[in-house]
Amino acid sequence: MNDKPGAKSEVITAAILVIGDEILSGRTKDKNIGHIAEYLTNIGIDMREVRVVPDIEAEIIAALDALRHRYTYVFTTGGIGPTHDDITADCVAKAFGVTIDVDPRARVLLLTRIAEKDMNEARLRMARIPAGADLILNKVSAAPGFRIGNVHVMAGVPSIMQAMLDEVAPTLRTGVKMLSETVRANCREGDIGTPLGEIAKAHPDAMIGSYPFQDEGRPNTNIVIRSRDAGKLAAAKSAVEDMLARVHGSLRQTA
Amino acid sequence: MNDKPGAKSEVITAAILVIGDEILSGRTKDKNIGHIAEYLTNIGIDMREVRVVPDIEAEIIAALDALRHRYTYVFTTGGIGPTHDDITADCVAKAFGVTIDVDPRARVLLLTRIAEKDMNEARLRMARIPAGADLILNKVSAAPGFRIGNVHVMAGVPSIMQAMLDEVAPTLRTGVKMLSETVRANCREGDIGTPLGEIAKAHPDAMIGSYPFQDEGRPNTNIVIRSRDAGKLAAAKSAVEDMLARVHGSLRQTA
Repeated sequence: MNDKPGAKSEVITAAILVIGDEILSGRTKDKNIGHIAEYLTNIGIDMREVRVVPDIEAEIIAALDALRHRYTYVFTTGGIGPTHDDITADCVAKAFGVTIDVDPRARVLLLTRIAEKDMNEARLRMARIPAGADLILNKVSAAPGFRIGNVHVMAGVPSIMQAMLDEVAPTLRTGVKMLSETVRANCREGDIGTPLGEIAKAHPDAMIGSYPFQDEGRPNTNIVIRSRDAGKLAAAKSAVEDMLARVHGSLRQTA
Repeated sequence: MNDKPGAKSEVITAAILVIGDEILSGRTKDKNIGHIAEYLTNIGIDMREVRVVPDIEAEIIAALDALRHRYTYVFTTGGIGPTHDDITADCVAKAFGVTIDVDPRARVLLLTRIAEKDMNEARLRMARIPAGADLILNKVSAAPGFRIGNVHVMAGVPSIMQAMLDEVAPTLRTGVKMLSETVRANCREGDIGTPLGEIAKAHPDAMIGSYPFQDEGRPNTNIVIRSRDAGKLAAAKSAVEDMLARVHGSLRQTA
């Protein structure tokens, strides 16, 4: 129960900044937004905004500044590899007004996987870390991400990003978890729109969403009720269930 | 060939605005961004930015205004159904400073699929269209999207959104198509980062991206070269292939 006295009441927010021409061209289909969103929701962090921007310094910095000043945390994905189009670390350093250079800790990490003879200028790019940042290790690749201020810079490759998020999660402040209940309406959205709107108005501390879906070829609706307060969630759910019973009764009469 | 004299040279840009709490909570995984991005790239429109925002009026209007003044086109998805959380049409009307009401054309459309006796206040919400907008029909659902100014408002359900995009596409101005070539490097990104960066500098009219991937369990790299000019694309591709031949020769020597 999250509504017991003394429960933490701070709301922790986050945004995702996806960096990469390949997402905007559609060549690569993003798999990170959904993963991060679900992950953070589950640990009590509210994802509030996502932006996708190209590999252009001014765009990355502008988006990063817009997001980092507004939300508790920002998570970036993409642009931290060894090639010329990997400019995320340099952009983050510029946004924070700090220097960036090859970080000895990151270089040591890389050398655990890369033979000294294979180390070159390109691979050393992956050890370029803004001054003052903490490294984000991961179990999949030797190349680290990093955290500076409230910004977490992660890889774009989903398996590596996921491993980095696992490392980061225990370091994050989390708020009261958003609780959620899903009620299958067994009718079409249009059958319940008006009474559902009235319930939403009468229960301002619960967020009520309505999501149509095809249920074995027939239109159906999931009603998702969310609240940080278990009592208020239960009250709103009960109001939805009562309403559905009334609507089903009336649909049977007119059938 | 797009570089022949008289070819259109205008660059047409676009942004996507995804509207919906369910995407930010991770409950629903977005499938529209990748589809729209690939579709528009293929017809010669440059996708430049994506934003995902919650079902909150001020957030939707702020994002819409930021995007519609900056790019040739904006495509929104989500929030045009029959329930209280479907507020996209009202937000768009507010952003454009126009009135919104049940549109007789949209009402007639809905009545082609919905029996008069089933028509209700909720379903009529789907006929609320900002003054001056054109309807966007689709072959999957009777409920239309709409276009106002440079903004195209589409459904969130992927099958309906895709049908709407098919309707919209012939009405869009398109620019010189971005041409693209992919070269499989057959080596790791870190092996080629430095010479690839030099090629990128020497070929400023080609955009060169480097994308690592697992090739039957071994690290490999796709180099994607893009340009609107076929000659410049070919020159950059040739430079990449020459570089790869040199790198492979040198890797064999040191192996």
